Amino acid sequence: MKEQIKVIAFDADDTLWENEPYFQEAELKFCALMEDFLPVHSISQELFQTEMTNLQLYGYGIKGFVLCMIETAYRISDGTASLRLIEQIIQMGKELLQKPINLLDGVEEVLNKLQGKYRLVVATKGDLLDQERKLKKSGLMKYFHHIEIMSDKQMADYQKLLKHLDCKAEHFLMLGNSIKSDIIPVLDLNGYAAHIPYHTLWTHEKHEHSLDHPNFMQLDTLTDILNFLNK
Amino acid sequence: MKEQIKVIAFDADDTLWENEPYFQEAELKFCALMEDFLPVHSISQELFQTEMTNLQLYGYGIKGFVLCMIETAYRISDGTASLRLIEQIIQMGKELLQKPINLLDGVEEVLNKLQGKYRLVVATKGDLLDQERKLKKSGLMKYFHHIEIMSDKQMADYQKLLKHLDCKAEHFLMLGNSIKSDIIPVLDLNGYAAHIPYHTLWTHEKHEHSLDHPNFMQLDTLTDILNFLNK
Repeated sequence: MKEQIKVIAFDADDTLWENEPYFQEAELKFCALMEDFLPVHSISQELFQTEMTNLQLYGYGIKGFVLCMIETAYRISDGTASLRLIEQIIQMGKELLQKPINLLDGVEEVLNKLQGKYRLVVATKGDLLDQERKLKKSGLMKYFHHIEIMSDKQMADYQKLLKHLDCKAEHFLMLGNSIKSDIIPVLDLNGYAAHIPYHTLWTHEKHEHSLDHPNFMQLDTLTDILNFLNK
Repeated sequence: MKEQIKVIAFDADDTLWENEPYFQEAELKFCALMEDFLPVHSISQELFQTEMTNLQLYGYGIKGFVLCMIETAYRISDGTASLRLIEQIIQMGKELLQKPINLLDGVEEVLNKLQGKYRLVVATKGDLLDQERKLKKSGLMKYFHHIEIMSDKQMADYQKLLKHLDCKAEHFLMLGNSIKSDIIPVLDLNGYAAHIPYHTLWTHEKHEHSLDHPNFMQLDTLTDILNFLNK
């Protein structure tokens, strides 16, 4: 199997660098700002509901998240919250857009060892400018043959990516932390996929079922992929 | 010269379909909402200033525009505007994201005649999901070999596009309505560029100087490019 792999694609957020903790920190701040109106747990639920309702329209990324926080603040305060609070939400968004990039353990080691042996690619979803900025800040651009920023990560999106890379699914290995976005659509195309769990995951990305597929690998850490490829 | 051209790239907003009038309509509505606080002309200036300050952070597109309207509403009302007004701005943004696509005159005729003779490409900046959605809605996808959604349209962005298309600048012709974004960076790379004016232009895209360059064409309408290429 491993002899077939020519292209290795990496998810970015929470696979190459930490991301979800920043969103969770922002959500906690949002809940604290709104706690006069609802219990914290209910605020989180309301925010998630707003995000799901608007996902088709806004897509993934920080700007849509900020707009959803503002919409939720309006709804749960029944229009009575102070405009000062909205200003604070906008500032939180600007801070999120400027967070430092903290690479996860083993990332540089893995990229160094795989470079030259495989075509390395980033396949990430989210806001175009923000993902480009994070990649530049990460210092990892030099390792990658191609960067694909996708509006979503469904089967059709991976098909487009494979066509674009002129790569057959059986030569493609995807690495990422989301079973739903990084693993299942790739397996459905008969590609290879390795799951590297991250300690926290956005509710929208959660996937409850266990996976059993000949092209699937469950890893503990990113560096485990080196053992697999060297076998 | 025309014998050299192999790839023709089209800007999308206000070149293939109308776009800026929708933003201007939204801005007028925003000014009407805020007219208790400042004269209309000053509101527009304040909004533009907010947009320019945030451009590096937000990039181009509707979500950033909505966030800038909200921030401007906070600033010019000194935090005293009603939250109901913020809700109206968010609704305006959602309407903008769902506007119909009205193709400009001659677009289908030009694409039909050029298809097969040249590699046709879309080179547009803005929000990834929103630009993809507009392209799908336009019904024009079938004409294009490649769609490039760029976070900006500066020289380095076009260099990346040309590399990606494996196309030399001297085989590349860009068509668009913005001298600043569609014409100058392409001429600077020694590509060809044709300007097709649209009746209205965002202040940020305005360019005051006249252009005199052997690779530059000033056209009146998009269909004029057919005369040039057939000569």
